[in-house]
Amino acid sequence: MAGLGTIFLSETVGTAMLLLLGGGVVANNILPKNKGKGTGFLMVNFGWGFAVLAGAIVANRSGGHINPAVTIGLAVQDWVGGGNKFDFVTIMTYFGGQMLGAFLGAVLCWLAYRKQFDLADDPALKLGVFSTGPEDRDYFWNTVTEAIGTFVLVFVIMGAGLIDTTNMGWLNYLGVSLLIVGIGASLGGPTGYAINPARDLGPRIAHAILPIKGKGSSDWAYSWVPVVGPFIGAVLAGLLAPVLL
Amino acid sequence: MAGLGTIFLSETVGTAMLLLLGGGVVANNILPKNKGKGTGFLMVNFGWGFAVLAGAIVANRSGGHINPAVTIGLAVQDWVGGGNKFDFVTIMTYFGGQMLGAFLGAVLCWLAYRKQFDLADDPALKLGVFSTGPEDRDYFWNTVTEAIGTFVLVFVIMGAGLIDTTNMGWLNYLGVSLLIVGIGASLGGPTGYAINPARDLGPRIAHAILPIKGKGSSDWAYSWVPVVGPFIGAVLAGLLAPVLL
Amino acid sequence: MAGLGTIFLSETVGTAMLLLLGGGVVANNILPKNKGKGTGFLMVNFGWGFAVLAGAIVANRSGGHINPAVTIGLAVQDWVGGGNKFDFVTIMTYFGGQMLGAFLGAVLCWLAYRKQFDLADDPALKLGVFSTGPEDRDYFWNTVTEAIGTFVLVFVIMGAGLIDTTNMGWLNYLGVSLLIVGIGASLGGPTGYAINPARDLGPRIAHAILPIKGKGSSDWAYSWVPVVGPFIGAVLAGLLAPVLL
Amino acid sequence: MAGLGTIFLSETVGTAMLLLLGGGVVANNILPKNKGKGTGFLMVNFGWGFAVLAGAIVANRSGGHINPAVTIGLAVQDWVGGGNKFDFVTIMTYFGGQMLGAFLGAVLCWLAYRKQFDLADDPALKLGVFSTGPEDRDYFWNTVTEAIGTFVLVFVIMGAGLIDTTNMGWLNYLGVSLLIVGIGASLGGPTGYAINPARDLGPRIAHAILPIKGKGSSDWAYSWVPVVGPFIGAVLAGLLAPVLL
Repeated sequence: MAGLGTIFLSETVGTAMLLLLGGGVVANNILPKNKGKGTGFLMVNFGWGFAVLAGAIVANRSGGHINPAVTIGLAVQDWVGGGNKFDFVTIMTYFGGQMLGAFLGAVLCWLAYRKQFDLADDPALKLGVFSTGPEDRDYFWNTVTEAIGTFVLVFVIMGAGLIDTTNMGWLNYLGVSLLIVGIGASLGGPTGYAINPARDLGPRIAHAILPIKGKGSSDWAYSWVPVVGPFIGAVLAGLLAPVLL
Repeated sequence: MAGLGTIFLSETVGTAMLLLLGGGVVANNILPKNKGKGTGFLMVNFGWGFAVLAGAIVANRSGGHINPAVTIGLAVQDWVGGGNKFDFVTIMTYFGGQMLGAFLGAVLCWLAYRKQFDLADDPALKLGVFSTGPEDRDYFWNTVTEAIGTFVLVFVIMGAGLIDTTNMGWLNYLGVSLLIVGIGASLGGPTGYAINPARDLGPRIAHAILPIKGKGSSDWAYSWVPVVGPFIGAVLAGLLAPVLL
Repeated sequence: MAGLGTIFLSETVGTAMLLLLGGGVVANNILPKNKGKGTGFLMVNFGWGFAVLAGAIVANRSGGHINPAVTIGLAVQDWVGGGNKFDFVTIMTYFGGQMLGAFLGAVLCWLAYRKQFDLADDPALKLGVFSTGPEDRDYFWNTVTEAIGTFVLVFVIMGAGLIDTTNMGWLNYLGVSLLIVGIGASLGGPTGYAINPARDLGPRIAHAILPIKGKGSSDWAYSWVPVVGPFIGAVLAGLLAPVLL
Repeated sequence: MAGLGTIFLSETVGTAMLLLLGGGVVANNILPKNKGKGTGFLMVNFGWGFAVLAGAIVANRSGGHINPAVTIGLAVQDWVGGGNKFDFVTIMTYFGGQMLGAFLGAVLCWLAYRKQFDLADDPALKLGVFSTGPEDRDYFWNTVTEAIGTFVLVFVIMGAGLIDTTNMGWLNYLGVSLLIVGIGASLGGPTGYAINPARDLGPRIAHAILPIKGKGSSDWAYSWVPVVGPFIGAVLAGLLAPVLL
């Protein structure tokens, strides 16, 4: 396993890439004065999928987690198998890089779409570029949906060893990428598939801090759902993978 | 070949994954209060394609059939070649795991989209998330369409040895996955491409049992078509592959 | 190189698969009573792309040409290099299998969409499932467009050796497949990208012969364009590849 | 590294392929009398992605740059590491081939869509097939967006060594191709993602020279943005890759 400094830097860079591209495809789809305005959910799905491809590639030195749920899922799987690859400091280093990267990526996305943000009227659309929100707000069922989506992500990654580029290079990240397209299309309907605590919380903090013209609430009331749901799903995947795969 | 217990568990897990994601993309497309509402058939095609990718990956220990038609096709091909890899008990074990998995996956899908089901009015849409139905009901021609689609699936799998991850790992499942996208786009028009008896029958049973708010008929009159059609196509593929490939 | 009997059978099977799926995606998109009605050109592009994937895989024993333009292009390239792999009888065997397969695939497609054909009113749509036609009829420029599109197909195949599964198995056919998606999206606008004489002529003959309810003209006046254009493009690719690649 | 003549020819051929297909998908989407008219931005993204796949494959002898920003980024990365693979003459040879190819590809695209150009009324649409333009014109922010998009392209290429087909053949170019789909979907909204100086400037010159019926301004006022922005992004990627990857 890479050193802590490498892990932190690598995850920061990869998660920033993830949020720059992932936030970008939402901006392109929903903000005014964009070539892709109104193209629809399938473009958003492919955009996030290839955002994961790009992000994982540039975070390859740390295994391309770019998602605290992936880290915690792998750690649980490792612990269940009696391993000790993931100690507390390592996990916190992953989390720190992921949160910082998600924040920075959201800032870069805002810069890339600066004019479009300025020209948009609806504050809800602006928040939508940064963080997820439910179509029908129900904290319990929204959490269930996020947990199921994240379980799928982490469980399938474990099934094919996709967080390991030893044999197949970046092609394994392509597997994760297409899996993200699939999870988005299949389970993204109710909540917009955060399935990644840093992906949602880091940009929400950016939304709260940045001087975005005409912004509204950062919807902190919902902010715990895309954190708790993914962690539940990831822990379940880590516990069940040794039994079911 | 894996032991019977492994086969049963593996196919259960993989087919549950298939139906969770496959049912999910339909739910996202047709139920209200979804980010992907009305995105269209291409998203459904990609959703089912990557559902097969995810399902086959997590069912890798049993060869990732997750479809009784694939199992029976491979068995017929094996018998024609004088093999005896697939005895009656093995086949029934595959079928059992596939049916149980399809049922469980449909339940999970219903949980992930619980609020959307509650908010939908049209009982036909609710059934549509679980099971296929024809656009123009004609039992003979619907069966023909399902048989042709399943023939393509099983025949092409045999052509490239896609149910064998020895040399190319999960990439062979990617081949199946893209093939599913293609079959859906190309042959899914008339009947919604079940091309998998368990994929249709398991969720139909779930639809009949689950306490889905405002549900209607489970359309048992049609239920035999996506069972009989796929089996016909798969048997033909198993018989013709040794001659034509 | 495979024997003549193998070539004929293999190309017949592969081109039948191509036309079943390729005709199918058009039928799904334009005929009434289809799940995919009106989904649009991108679905058609992906449908044809994966039709090529499926067709090439099941025609692997003969190199997966399933297109007379590919055969003639490779033959010209071989001749220019002083080779003699493609004699007259071999080429005619390829052509024969491709034409027969295209005819049979169109018949299978008609069977899979039998009810949808019966329910459609517009004869032009029915022909559109079988053969291509121009959006703006101009025999000279339509031929230019078809020649350019076919040049791209054959030239890029030569650039990466995609008609050779020795090292990368079916993944090389995936390359052809995605190339078809790209050519369709990029050069399919004016004429619907036949880029394959058999793909157009075989089904046109089927359209003329089959007892399709309410069918109209088979538009023989246009039929030479998707034959001559592709052959011109393929010959140019065969001549230029040794110089430019 | 290949000889200068090979580099020039290879980059000319590859960039011509890129612009033929890349211009083509825009023409198909926005000009009248096209099968793909109005299909939307996702088709444009996939069209450009597979245009890069085709272009890089046929420019494989020179590493498949087909983009001055990729060349300069790799040169800066090489210089930072103390290398001298890219001297001034080599870089100018790359640039010359890329510019000539982009010009020729735009001419070929115009020929493939000759009738559609003749039938279109709006001069802005005609220019849009050749060169990019902003949705909201702001030279500073448009440059920022182009710089960020190009940074992503060059940085991720460096992250996975995608400009190197030694180990994985054309599959590495598939990685670049899907990355282009992602950048288009995610960062193409404000400016139409030139992210390649030759891609924009070469066709703009072609637009100015060609006798296109009813053409309007070539918008030279904007022409420096898709040159300067990409070079800034590429240089940043070359400088930061050794530190961050």
